[in-house]
Amino acid sequence: MLITFEGLKGCKKEVYMNELADMLRRSRFPEVYCTKEPGFPDSPISRLMSHLINNEPSTMPVEKLFLLLADRAAHYEKFVGPIINRKRETAFSGGYVPPSTPGIVLSDRGPDSLIAYQGFGYQIAPIELLMAMNSLALRNTPIHLTFIIDIPEYESDPHGDQEFLKRVRQGYKHIAQMSPGRVFVVDGTMSVEKNKEFIWRTVAPALGINAQ
Amino acid sequence: MLITFEGLKGCKKEVYMNELADMLRRSRFPEVYCTKEPGFPDSPISRLMSHLINNEPSTMPVEKLFLLLADRAAHYEKFVGPIINRKRETAFSGGYVPPSTPGIVLSDRGPDSLIAYQGFGYQIAPIELLMAMNSLALRNTPIHLTFIIDIPEYESDPHGDQEFLKRVRQGYKHIAQMSPGRVFVVDGTMSVEKNKEFIWRTVAPALGINAQ
Repeated sequence: MLITFEGLKGCKKEVYMNELADMLRRSRFPEVYCTKEPGFPDSPISRLMSHLINNEPSTMPVEKLFLLLADRAAHYEKFVGPIINRKRETAFSGGYVPPSTPGIVLSDRGPDSLIAYQGFGYQIAPIELLMAMNSLALRNTPIHLTFIIDIPEYESDPHGDQEFLKRVRQGYKHIAQMSPGRVFVVDGTMSVEKNKEFIWRTVAPALGINAQ
Repeated sequence: MLITFEGLKGCKKEVYMNELADMLRRSRFPEVYCTKEPGFPDSPISRLMSHLINNEPSTMPVEKLFLLLADRAAHYEKFVGPIINRKRETAFSGGYVPPSTPGIVLSDRGPDSLIAYQGFGYQIAPIELLMAMNSLALRNTPIHLTFIIDIPEYESDPHGDQEFLKRVRQGYKHIAQMSPGRVFVVDGTMSVEKNKEFIWRTVAPALGINAQ
């Protein structure tokens, strides 16, 4: 199972991701992996690309778009795909685990970031083209659930380009409307405790866990 | 003006490119730049990417596809575009040059390689999607002329996958059929001397030169 967390910078998506990982591990799902895009863990190419993306001022928007997609293709091919598609071979020492449970991957950002930022925010390519490129990078890897942590633009970055942030936020809302079964919008202005509970009550049934 | 040279490995496209560059320079076009894809000259990012593309065995086809496009976007944004779009500001010391002549770029491979290799050869994405991605990478940079040096598969690589090479070759022929005004197929089994002459007689009129 693959779950992605999306939203504007400062929306605390990595907090919610790590909280969910802890709750899953406590519920006898030991094989929970947290990752992020761009730049997934332990890949020299991706580290390098992440460095270029973040630190090379001459990297142009379209070049960056393709670098992000190359990074995504590597992430899904080499890291996410093998974990969520594999069959469990070894017994888990901490208790009973069904023998064919694949791992669970939680990702801080995923393909929806490309739609929201490069599509709606920077407007450097048509949404349909960006979606086709994302599909190519993912190679049929299904995303089961996505949580968009929605916060107001000024809370994300009071000194940033508010119009740009507004477009990205609208992009995320558009994505949620397009994929109601997969994408859930979380009100980031509410308490972390309340939102944690909402996320847990959405994820648990999908894994056959009683959410209480 | 931008002119690309395409074809299977071993078709001598770089020979024809360099011969044309010499002829152009002798015809009072001093600002002729030869370049290539992937990995255009003097860009640290591109050198790095070219290294990854050529030497990293774990680089997957889709990841490589996006790296090639990132490299192409950088090439056109930072190198090809500025040369072919600029206006000439300084006088050429060797003779009269019209004051607004932009530079001429000759490239060993270009966007058509993606269609022929990734599209027809490796078949990793639909041709229409690859064409849309190429357009995005080129950002409206026009390619004026393309010469495909056509050689038989076994001449390119007698020990390689002949079916793959056949598909690439067919891809090039498809491209030529789609763009008859831009793309010219050169019979690579004929003498270099004859083909040089054909290329010159095609290029010269487009530059207002009497090809004799």
